[in-house]
Amino acid sequence: MTPVITAFAKSPDRGRGLARDMRVRWALEEVEKPYEVRLLSFDAMKQPAHLALNPFGQIPTYEDGDLVLFESGAIVLRIAEQHARLLPEDANARARAIMWMFAALSTVEPPIVERSMAVILERGEPWYEQRMPILEKNIRQRLDRLSHHLGDADWLDGRFSAGDLMMVMVLFRLEGSGLLEEYPNLAAYVARGQARPAFRRAFDAQRQVFLRS
Amino acid sequence: MTPVITAFAKSPDRGRGLARDMRVRWALEEVEKPYEVRLLSFDAMKQPAHLALNPFGQIPTYEDGDLVLFESGAIVLRIAEQHARLLPEDANARARAIMWMFAALSTVEPPIVERSMAVILERGEPWYEQRMPILEKNIRQRLDRLSHHLGDADWLDGRFSAGDLMMVMVLFRLEGSGLLEEYPNLAAYVARGQARPAFRRAFDAQRQVFLRS
Repeated sequence: MTPVITAFAKSPDRGRGLARDMRVRWALEEVEKPYEVRLLSFDAMKQPAHLALNPFGQIPTYEDGDLVLFESGAIVLRIAEQHARLLPEDANARARAIMWMFAALSTVEPPIVERSMAVILERGEPWYEQRMPILEKNIRQRLDRLSHHLGDADWLDGRFSAGDLMMVMVLFRLEGSGLLEEYPNLAAYVARGQARPAFRRAFDAQRQVFLRS
Repeated sequence: MTPVITAFAKSPDRGRGLARDMRVRWALEEVEKPYEVRLLSFDAMKQPAHLALNPFGQIPTYEDGDLVLFESGAIVLRIAEQHARLLPEDANARARAIMWMFAALSTVEPPIVERSMAVILERGEPWYEQRMPILEKNIRQRLDRLSHHLGDADWLDGRFSAGDLMMVMVLFRLEGSGLLEEYPNLAAYVARGQARPAFRRAFDAQRQVFLRS
């Protein structure tokens, strides 16, 4: 049975790989599980058919037989649990890999998204210049700690895991901000993720959607 | 073996149960697992001994034998995986319960925290009055959808699960904002969570820390 995911028909990131379907595509490529993609317009995302899959009206969703999931974190975890490779066998190492997924989504991503949203929505506001340094300071607080933890290791905790996949994708959102480049080991970490063949396949697949549209 | 969690010696919420150790305490009470608490000053949280447990220098952490975890989501999931009661046995229902944990932390919590932070940090800024309605609109967007999904059900997906635990705790952060009261079914949902004996025990335990300090 081939799972079906949803993605933007016209991604607002113009194919840069920032939309959250990229996380799920990458996970599926790592475990070499074929999948189908159903593309959705912004209008279709708010219609009952899609809201029945994800009440928040977002992408990606994941349909695999009777199971319907939303939330990229939950979908990646489900894929990782079913196919090895993305989670260690050792129980404690497995719990730590899942911990890094939560750290990426709950601790590192929110200030990064807050800055991206301000760039899009508040650029013309009189307070923009004054708030931006505060938003960037919040991001640096997280990156300082993460950089210190990573040190000169390749991955966050031993072998590449779903925790690295999620952290790389979250840091990848800093592209163009100049912030990641302040931390050479984090920049190299993201580049290591991007160099994985599964990442390339996933990236090219989502980029094709943009090029065709 | 009794697990050890960390919590604020002087919680900035003055014992209102908003600190993230409350989530872990509640999960431990639901599965009736005894635990110990190590209280930390703000200074101690930034020292090497604590940073070795959580590189981001936050509470809660969770030590259980050889395993050390941080991130309340990861800790609650670990507890839920080991003790039943907080996750359904059926594999698909289990995946959906975990999905609701991610939805609480990744989709519902960020705009709520953003508003709370603005109230604390930006109240004196000239843009405060203008930004607050935008922040509240972002929260309402999530609550509209969540309220519609919940309808008149008791819990998000069948029996009470770790997904409800996390969602109730995230919505609980809206206390005092007036926003939750705009959605009577969500307010009743949070009240249902608060009425659980395990919630009460956890709440009283964290409140005792404040009353003693």
